[in-house]
Amino acid sequence: MAQKPSIPKGTRDFNPDQVAKRNYIFNTIRGAFETFGFQSIETPSFENSATLMGKYGDEGDRLIFKILNSGDFLSKSNPEAYNNKDSVALTPSISEKALRYDLTVPFARYVVQHQNEIEFPFKRYQIQPVWRADRPQKGRFREFYQCDADVVGSKSLWQEVEFIQLYDAVFSALKLDGVTIKINNRKILSGIAEVIGASDKLIDFTVALDKLDKIGEEKVKEEMLSKGISEEGITKLQPLFTLSGDFKSQIEGLKGILSSSVEGQKGIEELTFINAAISELGLSTANLQLDVTLARGLNYYTGAIFEVSAPETVKMGSIGGGGRYDDLTGIFGMKDVSGVGISFGLDRIYLVLEELNLFPETVKKHIDVLFINFGDKEALFSLKAIKVLRAQGIHAELYPDASKMKKQMNHANKRSIPFVVLVGDQEIETNTYTLKNMRTGEQDKLSLEALCSAVKTS
Amino acid sequence: MAQKPSIPKGTRDFNPDQVAKRNYIFNTIRGAFETFGFQSIETPSFENSATLMGKYGDEGDRLIFKILNSGDFLSKSNPEAYNNKDSVALTPSISEKALRYDLTVPFARYVVQHQNEIEFPFKRYQIQPVWRADRPQKGRFREFYQCDADVVGSKSLWQEVEFIQLYDAVFSALKLDGVTIKINNRKILSGIAEVIGASDKLIDFTVALDKLDKIGEEKVKEEMLSKGISEEGITKLQPLFTLSGDFKSQIEGLKGILSSSVEGQKGIEELTFINAAISELGLSTANLQLDVTLARGLNYYTGAIFEVSAPETVKMGSIGGGGRYDDLTGIFGMKDVSGVGISFGLDRIYLVLEELNLFPETVKKHIDVLFINFGDKEALFSLKAIKVLRAQGIHAELYPDASKMKKQMNHANKRSIPFVVLVGDQEIETNTYTLKNMRTGEQDKLSLEALCSAVKTS
Repeated sequence: MAQKPSIPKGTRDFNPDQVAKRNYIFNTIRGAFETFGFQSIETPSFENSATLMGKYGDEGDRLIFKILNSGDFLSKSNPEAYNNKDSVALTPSISEKALRYDLTVPFARYVVQHQNEIEFPFKRYQIQPVWRADRPQKGRFREFYQCDADVVGSKSLWQEVEFIQLYDAVFSALKLDGVTIKINNRKILSGIAEVIGASDKLIDFTVALDKLDKIGEEKVKEEMLSKGISEEGITKLQPLFTLSGDFKSQIEGLKGILSSSVEGQKGIEELTFINAAISELGLSTANLQLDVTLARGLNYYTGAIFEVSAPETVKMGSIGGGGRYDDLTGIFGMKDVSGVGISFGLDRIYLVLEELNLFPETVKKHIDVLFINFGDKEALFSLKAIKVLRAQGIHAELYPDASKMKKQMNHANKRSIPFVVLVGDQEIETNTYTLKNMRTGEQDKLSLEALCSAVKTS
Repeated sequence: MAQKPSIPKGTRDFNPDQVAKRNYIFNTIRGAFETFGFQSIETPSFENSATLMGKYGDEGDRLIFKILNSGDFLSKSNPEAYNNKDSVALTPSISEKALRYDLTVPFARYVVQHQNEIEFPFKRYQIQPVWRADRPQKGRFREFYQCDADVVGSKSLWQEVEFIQLYDAVFSALKLDGVTIKINNRKILSGIAEVIGASDKLIDFTVALDKLDKIGEEKVKEEMLSKGISEEGITKLQPLFTLSGDFKSQIEGLKGILSSSVEGQKGIEELTFINAAISELGLSTANLQLDVTLARGLNYYTGAIFEVSAPETVKMGSIGGGGRYDDLTGIFGMKDVSGVGISFGLDRIYLVLEELNLFPETVKKHIDVLFINFGDKEALFSLKAIKVLRAQGIHAELYPDASKMKKQMNHANKRSIPFVVLVGDQEIETNTYTLKNMRTGEQDKLSLEALCSAVKTS
């Protein structure tokens, strides 16, 4: 029966041009991951539900795609939930597996499960899709790739230094100059909360502070007041709002604010170390910026917090982020494994490169040369040459049918194939190939050897 | 709460060595696909259930993983099925999406959905995972990759010729010499069934014939009899059982058997064309063999049928297969689109390469050089060199902590890192690096430039 075909909302087909552009980004990221010593692992697309549920908060639990058990799943369903028609209560009894929601929890599970085979410190990267039953909207999908690199098993701050270099290496390789790598440290935020007597309100405090850019100083203060932070505490914050200048001057400002907080001073020390190393090592095209309002994922970050913004000319949210978490694997019973990692936002990076026209022209060139098919004899003669071209890595193909020449030339044009080869009686007799440059219209009669080099060096 | 972590049965984690080996195979296949002019597309991991259900038979429907609807899914469930506690009848009302079961149906859906953007003939390849709720067993998984290349929109037999070349190219590149590419044609099988008066029993006939290798002539005849094929018809088959010799002699034998079948003669003509072309073009390491018992996927193949066997020294089933299907897209309402395609069985190819020890040594080398960390000053000096090495594509890393040297050297050994670099006061003073070859134990004090070339050319 004929059906009008479509795909589920929030999912995407990728055509060859899109795949090629995405692979250009993936390969650039992968190449940098590998030169930095990260090794690739892969985990299954679905995990046991128990591995994922409860790890992302209530909202996360709702957004996890659950897989229905096979067979007569109702026969083992929870009778009470069934009688009450309670979807949420019934789910665990009819669904044992769920699609990966991110790469971090599966990685933690992997580390714990394979701890005896892993040589620590373990630098792993993982580039795989994840799925979220989120409301689809512009730039937000139900299936999308995450590109994560993490190190577990060492608390060394050199890793934070290297992750900043890694961001710089990837975006420089993508020719996306002028990204800003923002850094903060949870200890700075905790220190400030401590100083203003709001340690118990750390999350409320940082959520409000995080909005400084968008809503301004007065509104931030109002929000803090409304959350029960004292007038006196907020007054102590004043220097924070006027913090300015480069990394070092901001650090000086923080030293004043945080003089009474041991944790805050530890944060200052860490940031100072990282900034000094980066100053010595230099960055190619990125800028490192201290941003004391940065608080992403504060519930699990325990040290450094990173976020990368696209160049200011492009209106786009963050294109990467990460940080240090001191107890990733604790949820699976393995204590004291410190980790630090970063992530690249593929879809947003794609949009930025598209907007700035930064995809190299070569990315879209799939085929180097098409042989026109004038009949079986000519086709066979052509395939002998094609075999030689392919063995040299040249992307070569024969038009499969002996259709009208105009149709075949149109095919080459529509697919932007740069060269076609014409083979008729004369060519077969003289063992030559007529090569036509589709851009210039130039034609040359060439030996097979000359044909190879002409197509190769173009 | 601590949980003992595990993964669902039939799924796998891949560690860095395994990922590297799998990528070696993927990249070899991908490279050949691209030199042959195929372009990559990607489709979503899950499709609307209506796209998949009913396309793979009842057994297939059962093996498709269904995704539970989000939210209060029971509120929209089929009341009758709910009252009857009928799992199968309830499923469509609580699950709208399902995981991809193969790449062929999603490809057909893609072609129909995007027919106006596609330039035909369309040569696409697709390397993505698929999921089946099969009983897991040795070599059979619930999540596995398929690697498919298909051409749609042309009936030219040159494509069959090229697919044979493609198989040869991939297995030759993998150094897996001596695979056998078996070919048959549905028209041969139909012709034989016609000749013996069993056209209405084509499937029964071919299923029995397919077992010739395993159960022998007598048992095959018994099975045919039991399926209602006449004694007289089976007598006419006799020449088929004694068909022998090379491709051409077998074809001669078939000519006798099929002299009265127009369809059978068409099959002979097609096979003859393909064999003649391959004889002219030559194969590097594979053998082409006519196998009139070959019938895989007969329900949809309409012309050529392919299957690849590993070299006889390895006990392994088929490592690839494919064929021509004349109405792939008909299920989605687009008629008369002929297609032909082949598939590579990644997991089995992996096992074969492993058994024959054919993975190149370099596949497992992840890191080129590790810098030993003697402290912050030395680490910073090292990172300056590491930056230069990485920019040249060398996989270099710094041990993150200033641990005992023995521990760091052990780390390098366990990870089979071929070189370590030692940097102390003396090296910093003289701006040199002590490079230690971990295999030979040799040590050299080198300039940065010499260090780069030493590591690079190793």
